[in-house]
Amino acid sequence: MPFARPSGRPPEQMRAVSITRGFTRHAEGSVLVAFGDTRVLCTASVENRVPAFLRGKGEGWITAEYGMLPRSTHTRSDREAARGKQGGRTLEIQRLIGRSLRACVDRVALGERTITLDCDVLQADGGTRTAAITGAYVALVDAMRWLQAKKEIARNPVVGAVAAVSVGVYRGVPVLDLDYAEDSDCDTDMNVVMNDGGGFIELQGTAEGHAFRRDELDALLALAEKGTGELFAAQQAALAL
Amino acid sequence: MPFARPSGRPPEQMRAVSITRGFTRHAEGSVLVAFGDTRVLCTASVENRVPAFLRGKGEGWITAEYGMLPRSTHTRSDREAARGKQGGRTLEIQRLIGRSLRACVDRVALGERTITLDCDVLQADGGTRTAAITGAYVALVDAMRWLQAKKEIARNPVVGAVAAVSVGVYRGVPVLDLDYAEDSDCDTDMNVVMNDGGGFIELQGTAEGHAFRRDELDALLALAEKGTGELFAAQQAALAL
Amino acid sequence: MPFARPSGRPPEQMRAVSITRGFTRHAEGSVLVAFGDTRVLCTASVENRVPAFLRGKGEGWITAEYGMLPRSTHTRSDREAARGKQGGRTLEIQRLIGRSLRACVDRVALGERTITLDCDVLQADGGTRTAAITGAYVALVDAMRWLQAKKEIARNPVVGAVAAVSVGVYRGVPVLDLDYAEDSDCDTDMNVVMNDGGGFIELQGTAEGHAFRRDELDALLALAEKGTGELFAAQQAALAL
Amino acid sequence: MPFARPSGRPPEQMRAVSITRGFTRHAEGSVLVAFGDTRVLCTASVENRVPAFLRGKGEGWITAEYGMLPRSTHTRSDREAARGKQGGRTLEIQRLIGRSLRACVDRVALGERTITLDCDVLQADGGTRTAAITGAYVALVDAMRWLQAKKEIARNPVVGAVAAVSVGVYRGVPVLDLDYAEDSDCDTDMNVVMNDGGGFIELQGTAEGHAFRRDELDALLALAEKGTGELFAAQQAALAL
Amino acid sequence: MPFARPSGRPPEQMRAVSITRGFTRHAEGSVLVAFGDTRVLCTASVENRVPAFLRGKGEGWITAEYGMLPRSTHTRSDREAARGKQGGRTLEIQRLIGRSLRACVDRVALGERTITLDCDVLQADGGTRTAAITGAYVALVDAMRWLQAKKEIARNPVVGAVAAVSVGVYRGVPVLDLDYAEDSDCDTDMNVVMNDGGGFIELQGTAEGHAFRRDELDALLALAEKGTGELFAAQQAALAL
Amino acid sequence: MPFARPSGRPPEQMRAVSITRGFTRHAEGSVLVAFGDTRVLCTASVENRVPAFLRGKGEGWITAEYGMLPRSTHTRSDREAARGKQGGRTLEIQRLIGRSLRACVDRVALGERTITLDCDVLQADGGTRTAAITGAYVALVDAMRWLQAKKEIARNPVVGAVAAVSVGVYRGVPVLDLDYAEDSDCDTDMNVVMNDGGGFIELQGTAEGHAFRRDELDALLALAEKGTGELFAAQQAALAL
Repeated sequence: MPFARPSGRPPEQMRAVSITRGFTRHAEGSVLVAFGDTRVLCTASVENRVPAFLRGKGEGWITAEYGMLPRSTHTRSDREAARGKQGGRTLEIQRLIGRSLRACVDRVALGERTITLDCDVLQADGGTRTAAITGAYVALVDAMRWLQAKKEIARNPVVGAVAAVSVGVYRGVPVLDLDYAEDSDCDTDMNVVMNDGGGFIELQGTAEGHAFRRDELDALLALAEKGTGELFAAQQAALAL
Repeated sequence: MPFARPSGRPPEQMRAVSITRGFTRHAEGSVLVAFGDTRVLCTASVENRVPAFLRGKGEGWITAEYGMLPRSTHTRSDREAARGKQGGRTLEIQRLIGRSLRACVDRVALGERTITLDCDVLQADGGTRTAAITGAYVALVDAMRWLQAKKEIARNPVVGAVAAVSVGVYRGVPVLDLDYAEDSDCDTDMNVVMNDGGGFIELQGTAEGHAFRRDELDALLALAEKGTGELFAAQQAALAL
Repeated sequence: MPFARPSGRPPEQMRAVSITRGFTRHAEGSVLVAFGDTRVLCTASVENRVPAFLRGKGEGWITAEYGMLPRSTHTRSDREAARGKQGGRTLEIQRLIGRSLRACVDRVALGERTITLDCDVLQADGGTRTAAITGAYVALVDAMRWLQAKKEIARNPVVGAVAAVSVGVYRGVPVLDLDYAEDSDCDTDMNVVMNDGGGFIELQGTAEGHAFRRDELDALLALAEKGTGELFAAQQAALAL
Repeated sequence: MPFARPSGRPPEQMRAVSITRGFTRHAEGSVLVAFGDTRVLCTASVENRVPAFLRGKGEGWITAEYGMLPRSTHTRSDREAARGKQGGRTLEIQRLIGRSLRACVDRVALGERTITLDCDVLQADGGTRTAAITGAYVALVDAMRWLQAKKEIARNPVVGAVAAVSVGVYRGVPVLDLDYAEDSDCDTDMNVVMNDGGGFIELQGTAEGHAFRRDELDALLALAEKGTGELFAAQQAALAL
Repeated sequence: MPFARPSGRPPEQMRAVSITRGFTRHAEGSVLVAFGDTRVLCTASVENRVPAFLRGKGEGWITAEYGMLPRSTHTRSDREAARGKQGGRTLEIQRLIGRSLRACVDRVALGERTITLDCDVLQADGGTRTAAITGAYVALVDAMRWLQAKKEIARNPVVGAVAAVSVGVYRGVPVLDLDYAEDSDCDTDMNVVMNDGGGFIELQGTAEGHAFRRDELDALLALAEKGTGELFAAQQAALAL
Repeated sequence: MPFARPSGRPPEQMRAVSITRGFTRHAEGSVLVAFGDTRVLCTASVENRVPAFLRGKGEGWITAEYGMLPRSTHTRSDREAARGKQGGRTLEIQRLIGRSLRACVDRVALGERTITLDCDVLQADGGTRTAAITGAYVALVDAMRWLQAKKEIARNPVVGAVAAVSVGVYRGVPVLDLDYAEDSDCDTDMNVVMNDGGGFIELQGTAEGHAFRRDELDALLALAEKGTGELFAAQQAALAL
């Protein structure tokens, strides 16, 4: 049987990506990002205060929160607010989003402000965290433009772009941008966050089945570089509108 | 100064209402409802189990959960999952939605199944609970059609329609379908849930400023009857597509 | 079979009401209120501080908390402190009590003070929230008198009286002041909070069985007016002692 | 300056004790116990189930819960249900009450039933835990009588009586049954739980100020013996009514 | 059958006691204490702040926290951090440790500092709380010496020594320092905290089986005096190194 | 200024590693692992039950919990049990430990049993999660030997070995096994979990300062391979005793 991805995509093909700015009206940045059937609403909210550990230091803060609507998934998941706590996966993802976006911000240029990136999954089909990072970047830029338009900051604190994509070994073949069908049935799953200078910001690889070899890792990193390249283009196109 | 609503609407005019079915793909019913700028995603999820107090009684259950995305509001609100509990307002609203929808379901015809209505506010501009009830009804009907299409139930357990609207006394004048600007500045606010037979299912009136008189109540109820009439038409139109 | 209420009362008759001031000694106001077998201890506590959102505004605050002793009910209920959270019903009721009592207080005349009304149900037989509102009003007046006696405030901030009663449609007949036997078996249940000027402060009606018609609503409101009239008299009599 | 207790009582005198059975109507045992101004409502609730660790062993269980109404105290305390947890003092006291009452019950004779003793302080003036144990004993006996009257158990599982009193060293003098004024200003405070055979069930002594000597301990134990003797008489008198 | 303790010890013999200072390197005091197979790590942490109720009063505070590693016990216990709360036993023990150590400190001499004693059980075999108190005393002295060495305080705020031991009636015989085999099978269990002046600081006796008589109490207190005497010697020896 | 690590180690040198089996006596596996001043107690507990999602499937489960004693760190951290929840970092680490160890176990050979690996940090100096994984592996093997000795399982379910080490870019130089001084001041930090077949199980790299380039990644992976090689030898040596 020849290799085939459930979606019929070639190994190195991403799903259709769309980035819609201004999806809701109250937030300083509001982006609906879609990686195929995965759809995440990313909002950026600006507040004129920083966490206690930064008070008086002349620096800003970027943080993130992540959630899934209970029926964004194939079967309904418990609402975390009703259970009374965020699960380990949620905390792990929102810490990842926060670190990734902080990596492209000059926090002194931001001044004593906090930008909170809320990433809420409306529909899940694999890759919600990578879509969230990619979309949150655009919402963040919009919030910075809003601050500049109000003359609250002198220059744009965003330095470079950040995007993320998943890669994995599916039935022995390295593939780009796993959807849910692949994600739940693959040997190795890796989330790669890169900047547009080709540097790695985060690398999180997990061998679900057999441990991955060094040559597989190399192939996966090459796919990630290709994928994030396409995402940087999509971000730029959306921001140019 | 002549009376004017912030939106310029006449007192008896509702905001533009839209009801979009199939907004997301996993849920058995998925509806995006908009009352003007208020947008709520209502999903209906079917599960083949009932709460403990109904086990073995041959009846089903309808329940609801409600949430607001942190930046659905003008300024960012805390995420309830992060705070570790749902607030009193949230619990009150989700109890209201659940009771309202149970009023139009023959729970014996449903059999030992639970339908959970998740109402998540993507964008808030007043009247989120009434939009949620109105949209959740359509999602509920879609879930029932799904059960009928799968031949799991013999007949549709939904009896009649349910819709809800807010009314209030704004600067001395009874008005229909308050938006946020009116809601935060009115004397009396009432949420009215009706069925399409003209019966009242829930009536929740609060005098924020001065207590309301009987004649004001009568005027408000007449407006609510007009508003829900238009909502029943919108629900029917959406379900006919 | 002719209509009969479980208690044998005519439809328009309230249960025996008693209001005992000074039931405990530490609180600035302490009232035991009984509507038949329903007994609620209402205390008013004065504190010289206001919530953060009111600080420095020269206004006071009135808030309420509600609880049921675990064995106030026919079968033992879980202790909310042991379960680690207050349920939705509790939060809903204490929000209602707080709003109702705020409706009769001039918060500027109160100054930057908080009065907390703790309503704890010692014995439940239906109508605990309406008894709580009615009794809390008397405790509130006593707390204001205590402040006046200490010359902390120049004039009484309480404007008018507030009382509450439940009405409902039991076996097709509108009745006043439902007890537990009626409450758990009625079609419609409505809690009505009024002031002594005949104005409505809160109206919360729920159709448990069939939806209620406009004429039923009218009959219920007339009963509520009668009932609160008797409660205002009972409050005045208690306060005159 | 000669020694004087704030209340004027001689060192070996208890406060007035009263034990009122049938204080509320739903519980199988319901007792209001007063030690002077300390008033505790103790209810006993019978349930036909046991905790998991006893299932199928043919034994029953006795447990207790304790709470203070927020304004039972001189200044208002936070409501534990609202704070979301029971404090250390509460847990410590309810564990003490449970152990003390288990000491007088033949749990095999009780059969697979649980009796929960809810001790809720309506008014606090020192000694709430000792009053609670003393009153809970009477509520427990009433619940056993109720089981016997219903012929659910063949013989009374209560063996002997249990009562508790506090003793302490106040301004150098051993005194019996400390009230709040003494309790908050004494060097040593000891709670003593005894049975009517003169045996010790619990002994909890704490040196708040200077450590207590052996001769002080002896004097305190003699006072406790005298105090519990009077409490056994009061329990018997109440149960004979 | 002649009387024999499971360990073969005579009734009045303690287990081997060892006290190791400097067990970990970050804390200002760090002591591993062993009573036979019971091993508790006690650290003392100095912080330059006091709880809110002491702010500005020129006094310090001593507090304690207690925990058991999940597999310090024969069968694994739940991790309290994962369950989301500390149990009643834990709270009770840490309150006891805190009170006991406060009894030997001149809090004015300490100044506005808090010393937290963390007592974490690495291995449990009965008597963890008495070992914790005995070891925490040594950690506390080390923290005070550290403060003196840094010239932060002028004189040692520790006045006298504090140690604790358990005693109990095992198969009718009063015994000293119960191990787990005895503790889970004894009639009476008493924890005694003493100072080196022969005074009692805490006395907590519980009759698990039959109530204990006065002569048993006398025998237990004599054993406790012997045991704490040996513990004071062990503490002094460790502190002299 | 020539490059120097705070500890004076050459870039490719690990800290002294020690692995002590049988550190405590109750657990089926109990290992104290030290990477320099980092000391973690790893216990393996065997239970004859599996989580709900595995019941009846004939497979076992490996899970992990992680904690830091409050004063294992330079300054005291809050006790998670007292705060009422485990933080995001804790959850992330214990999920990582669990996944890593599951990667070397044949869960069918284990049968319907759960092995819980509790990793508690007694003293922290960087690299607690990598030390925990490395030590937990040894505890896991001991638990499997215990099961084999009891003839509960026919063959050893552990396939291969697992070890972990951190690598990072410190002042521009790739270094092995970061201690706290390096960890809190480095540009890139990566935790690498490998098996003894040279395969990668987990790879978690974070650019704290500048993003890392591909050649830096290659250097880091080579160091990790060297480090885990030494750890496999240390594990084998410990298990041979």
